Amino acid sequence: MKLYDGAWAPSPRRVRIYLAEKRIYVERVVIDLKQGEHLTPAFVGINPQRQLPALLLDDGTLLDDSLAICRYFEALQPDPPLFGTDPREIGLVEAWLRRIEHDCFQAVALAFRNRVPAFAGRALSGQWPRIEQIPDLVERGRSMWSAFIELFDAHLTRQSYVAGEAFTMADIAALVAIDFGIDTRLPDPRERHAALARWHAAVSSRPSAAA
Amino acid sequence: MKLYDGAWAPSPRRVRIYLAEKRIYVERVVIDLKQGEHLTPAFVGINPQRQLPALLLDDGTLLDDSLAICRYFEALQPDPPLFGTDPREIGLVEAWLRRIEHDCFQAVALAFRNRVPAFAGRALSGQWPRIEQIPDLVERGRSMWSAFIELFDAHLTRQSYVAGEAFTMADIAALVAIDFGIDTRLPDPRERHAALARWHAAVSSRPSAAA
Repeated sequence: MKLYDGAWAPSPRRVRIYLAEKRIYVERVVIDLKQGEHLTPAFVGINPQRQLPALLLDDGTLLDDSLAICRYFEALQPDPPLFGTDPREIGLVEAWLRRIEHDCFQAVALAFRNRVPAFAGRALSGQWPRIEQIPDLVERGRSMWSAFIELFDAHLTRQSYVAGEAFTMADIAALVAIDFGIDTRLPDPRERHAALARWHAAVSSRPSAAA
Repeated sequence: MKLYDGAWAPSPRRVRIYLAEKRIYVERVVIDLKQGEHLTPAFVGINPQRQLPALLLDDGTLLDDSLAICRYFEALQPDPPLFGTDPREIGLVEAWLRRIEHDCFQAVALAFRNRVPAFAGRALSGQWPRIEQIPDLVERGRSMWSAFIELFDAHLTRQSYVAGEAFTMADIAALVAIDFGIDTRLPDPRERHAALARWHAAVSSRPSAAA
């Protein structure tokens, strides 16, 4: 088994934090995204989607999605559980994973990939025909970011972690999405949102956050 | 427990097909989307996200996402399994669920909600500030649809169902997304894609498809 990993980008970070929380060790191959190594024939031959992370299993199966890789390991090694422990919590973790993806991570991706010149013609991540940048999407992404931050901060006034009183995969996804927003120059939400700032400090202080 | 359901829209259909496959019966309340009942104070009081489906549990917890509702029931009643049976299949189902959501369902939603006058100022589903339509996203959505259809048809030349030889939640999500595209006047992919057409006929002929 081999994990194709990459520095800086948010999706590989999701898997690294997850694996650190689970204390799972996997052979890693680091692909240099800044040098475009994910676009070379050698890597496209491994993952036609040109994305990281990707997990190559010993039977040749490729899992080319961060959450799919985490759920694969969760089934292999359930403890400590990070996708919920009873039906209600399992449902809440999934609901928040999907909301964080749609309303926060996608907001950051819209604001970033439609703005930065290096992504001209590649406004979507992955294997696509030429996709032009749409400048109006930068503003849409910023509006989505602001609205999500308000909702998320209010949510965190009521409980310690995203899906309740236990740290779960939803906290990992939210930390990665919010740090991705801060890193790409969206307004830092910690300055005016106390509950979010308290949560962010707590999850960032776990050793896994530096993985 | 009570399921808030709605006719026509794709996300409630995902849950109805899932429940039919599992032979799970739940009390339903049908909200009239065409009359805007999901935007009324009565429903917003139940689900501030203004979206369907939503599952209200007996303890007052609301699961406001279609996949979260299905995973809740999957944990309650594992058989027949629809999210995979071993780590590899569990990973593949999740990878395809996420690809179908990002690359197909979102493509259709972009092409639809940025085009139809009824969604002016509400170009995103859910609880948002005013989100203006962006006409260029109609073309982006159409490009994404075409690219996904090519990839999906090629994939289905190699196996019977989306995640392998067993019918899973990934087939339900793909059927709903593709029918949503056809219903909203994207090019019908069955005409020129034989493997996709074979798969579509097989999954559509299951009694659950009419749920």
